[in-house]
Amino acid sequence: MTSEPSSAARPLHGINVLDLGQVYGGPYCAHLLLHLGASVIKVESPGRGEPLRANRAAGAGDPVGFQLINGGKSSVALDLKSKESHDEFLALVRSADVLIENFAPGTALSLGIDYETLHAINPRLIYATLKAYSADSPNAQLRGMDLTVQASSGVMSVNGFPDGPPVRCGPSLVDFLGGTHLALGVTAALLERSITGRGQHVDVSLQDAVLPTLTSNFAAWLTNPDSAFERTGNRHGGMRESPYNVYATNDGWIAILCISEPQWRGLCELLDRLDLRDDPTLATNHGRALRMLEIDDVVSDWTRRHDSVSAIALLQGAGVPCAQLKTVLQVVDDESTRAVPMLRHVVNDDGTDSYTFGSPVRLSEHEPLEPLAVSTLGEQNEQVLSALHSSSRGSHDGR
Amino acid sequence: MTSEPSSAARPLHGINVLDLGQVYGGPYCAHLLLHLGASVIKVESPGRGEPLRANRAAGAGDPVGFQLINGGKSSVALDLKSKESHDEFLALVRSADVLIENFAPGTALSLGIDYETLHAINPRLIYATLKAYSADSPNAQLRGMDLTVQASSGVMSVNGFPDGPPVRCGPSLVDFLGGTHLALGVTAALLERSITGRGQHVDVSLQDAVLPTLTSNFAAWLTNPDSAFERTGNRHGGMRESPYNVYATNDGWIAILCISEPQWRGLCELLDRLDLRDDPTLATNHGRALRMLEIDDVVSDWTRRHDSVSAIALLQGAGVPCAQLKTVLQVVDDESTRAVPMLRHVVNDDGTDSYTFGSPVRLSEHEPLEPLAVSTLGEQNEQVLSALHSSSRGSHDGR
Repeated sequence: MTSEPSSAARPLHGINVLDLGQVYGGPYCAHLLLHLGASVIKVESPGRGEPLRANRAAGAGDPVGFQLINGGKSSVALDLKSKESHDEFLALVRSADVLIENFAPGTALSLGIDYETLHAINPRLIYATLKAYSADSPNAQLRGMDLTVQASSGVMSVNGFPDGPPVRCGPSLVDFLGGTHLALGVTAALLERSITGRGQHVDVSLQDAVLPTLTSNFAAWLTNPDSAFERTGNRHGGMRESPYNVYATNDGWIAILCISEPQWRGLCELLDRLDLRDDPTLATNHGRALRMLEIDDVVSDWTRRHDSVSAIALLQGAGVPCAQLKTVLQVVDDESTRAVPMLRHVVNDDGTDSYTFGSPVRLSEHEPLEPLAVSTLGEQNEQVLSALHSSSRGSHDGR
Repeated sequence: MTSEPSSAARPLHGINVLDLGQVYGGPYCAHLLLHLGASVIKVESPGRGEPLRANRAAGAGDPVGFQLINGGKSSVALDLKSKESHDEFLALVRSADVLIENFAPGTALSLGIDYETLHAINPRLIYATLKAYSADSPNAQLRGMDLTVQASSGVMSVNGFPDGPPVRCGPSLVDFLGGTHLALGVTAALLERSITGRGQHVDVSLQDAVLPTLTSNFAAWLTNPDSAFERTGNRHGGMRESPYNVYATNDGWIAILCISEPQWRGLCELLDRLDLRDDPTLATNHGRALRMLEIDDVVSDWTRRHDSVSAIALLQGAGVPCAQLKTVLQVVDDESTRAVPMLRHVVNDDGTDSYTFGSPVRLSEHEPLEPLAVSTLGEQNEQVLSALHSSSRGSHDGR
C-alpha cells in the first residue's frame, strides 16, 4: 500500500489492480476486489476491446453483460504487441499490486507478460491466473471456458431429468466460481505480502473450482457406485434427502426440503400427518429417502391445494426451508431485489443507462459502494498514461 | 496472529477459526481458510453432529459428503444450550480470530452467540455469517438452502430445455458460491484487522452470491425483454454466441464454442468451410448468433464423423475451446483428476478410507496440503477444552 489508510478505509484501499480479464471469470475477480476497496485499471486491446465488450450489435454501446461486472474500473486500451504500448504496460506493472489474467494457455508468455517476466520487474506483484485446467493437469494446455468445463467436470452429466439427456447448467457457475476463488487467493496473497513484502503467483483453474459443487454426486459414487444416479432432476444429487423437490401449487411451483428432524416434524404437523411425524422409520434423512415417492406425494397433495404465497408463509412458519420458483424477469422486478445493493441502475454522464452488480461480500465497517459508471474503451488512456510519464520523472516506488 | 510466521508460513498461519457451519456453505468457507493456513475447530452438537454428518445410514461412519469438505478440522462437540458448554464456547471465542455460522435466521441470537454479544467479548473477532437472504432484504427472516435459493434467484428458471420445465441445477452452486464469497470476505477483514486491530461482521447471502452467475440472462432481459429467452438448453443464456452448444460425435458428446474471431476462423479452416470464414455477415458473434441453426448444423455434421478424442485434438489444434462430456464416475477415474490435488484419498488411523477435497486456490510460495484426515465427532474435545482450562489460569490474549 502506498499510504496509511484512514480508519474508514476499505480493506483493499490503496491496492492497484491491472485487470487483463476477459468475459466473466477474470473481470468478476477484479469486480470483487474493487468493491473491497481496490482501484482497478482494465487493460484491453484497442479497437473493439475484450471479447465481452466486443460482443455488441453494430452501433450499440457496451453490452449490458459487460456493464454488469465492469462498473467503476478505469479503461486503458493498449496493444501489447507494439513496443511502445508494451513499455507503457510494464511501467503500469511497476506500480501495480495485482495483475489478473485469464488468457488462453500460452498467451501471456507470447505477449511477454508472464509471471516470471513481471515478477522480475516487480517482486511485490501478485499475479493471478485463471485457466480451464491447472498447470499440473495433463489438460493444462487445453483451451476451455464455462461451457466446456461444465462438460469436462461432470457438471452437465448431473444436470437434467433422469429420463432426459445431460444439459448445460443455465447459470455460468464455472466462470463465477473461478473468479471468486481467484479473488480469495489474491486477498490471501496480499495478507501474506503484508508480512513478507513479496508477491507470488496465484493460480486457480475452472475445473478445480467447480468440483466441490458436485459434493453430493461424488459422495454417492464414492460410497456405492451401484446405488448412485447420474441425473436426479429436482431431487437431491445423492438421493439422500426427502422431501427435496419442486412441487406444484395451484398457481406455480415451490421448492421444499427438510434436512433436519425439527424441520420434518414441523412439516408433518403443518400437514396434519402426525402418523408420519411419529413413524420411527421416518425419523432420519436416510429413512425418509427410502420412502421418497410416498413423501413427495404427501407434500404435493398439500401444495396443490394452496397458492404459492400462502404455502410459503405456512411452511416458513413451521420452520421448513422453501421458496417460490421465480423467473429472471420476476427477479429483476422483485422488490426484494431492489431492496439490496446487488443489481444497480446507473445513469451515465451522457444520460444513457447502464446496470452494474454490487458485491455479495458485505462488511459491517463499510457501506456498499454507490452504483459505479462503466468506462468506455480507452476512456482513461490519457489520464493513466500521462500520470505514468510524469511519475517516471519522479520518485520510484513499489519496492 | 499469535506469533511471527516464518517465511514459509501460509497466509492464514496462526489464525484460529471456529466453524459452526452446517452442510455445505459454512463448512466449505472454513475448508478454504484451512487450506490457506488457518487452524479450524469445528463445533457441533453432541449426539449426531451437524446435519451433514448426521445424514448417515445406521451403523455407518461419517458420510463421504461430510468427509469431502471437513478434512483437517479438529472436532469439538458442545451443547450450546447448556450453561457449562456455553461458557466453554465463550472461552474459545476469546482466543478465536474467525467464527463462521450459517444457522437459520435467529438461531445465533437465541443461542446467545450473535455478533454483538461475541464482539463485546472479543473485538478482534471476525464474525462471518451466511444466510439465504441478506439482512436488508424483506426476505431476511426466511429459511433457505441451495435448492430453495435456486428457485428464488431465477437459477432454476434458466436451467433446462426451452420446451421442457425449469429444473434444479445438479451441482450445489448456490452453497459453494456462498461459502467462497464468505471466505473472501473473511480474508479481506483479516487484512483490514492487520491495520486497524479490529474485527467486524462479514455477511454474505446465498441469493446475492448466485445472482452474478445469471449475467448472460440478466443482460438479455435488461437489453430487450422481447428477444430474451427463459431456458436455452445447451445454448448461450443470452443466445448471443454461436457455435455454443453440445454436439454429438460418433461415440459421445463434446461441448464447443467460439467467442472470438480467431477461434471462428480456426474452426472454419478446420472444417474446410472457407466460404463461412470469409462471409462478412459471420465476422462477429452478433452476426453468427443470427445464423445459429445453420452453424449448429455445420458443426454437428463434422462432429458426427469423428470420435470424441480425435475431434477434441483437432479443434484444440485449431484454437477452438472444447471438451468431452464426462460423467462424475469418469471424472473420479480420470487420470487428469488424479494428477491434481483436488480429490484426495486418505487412509485414517484406524485403516478406514476417507476422501477430502483439496483447495482450488493454489499459491506459488506453498505446496498444496497433504491429504487430511477427518475427525470423528468430539475427537478433540478433551485436547481443546483442557488447553482452554489451563490457558485460563495463565495469561489473557486477544485484545
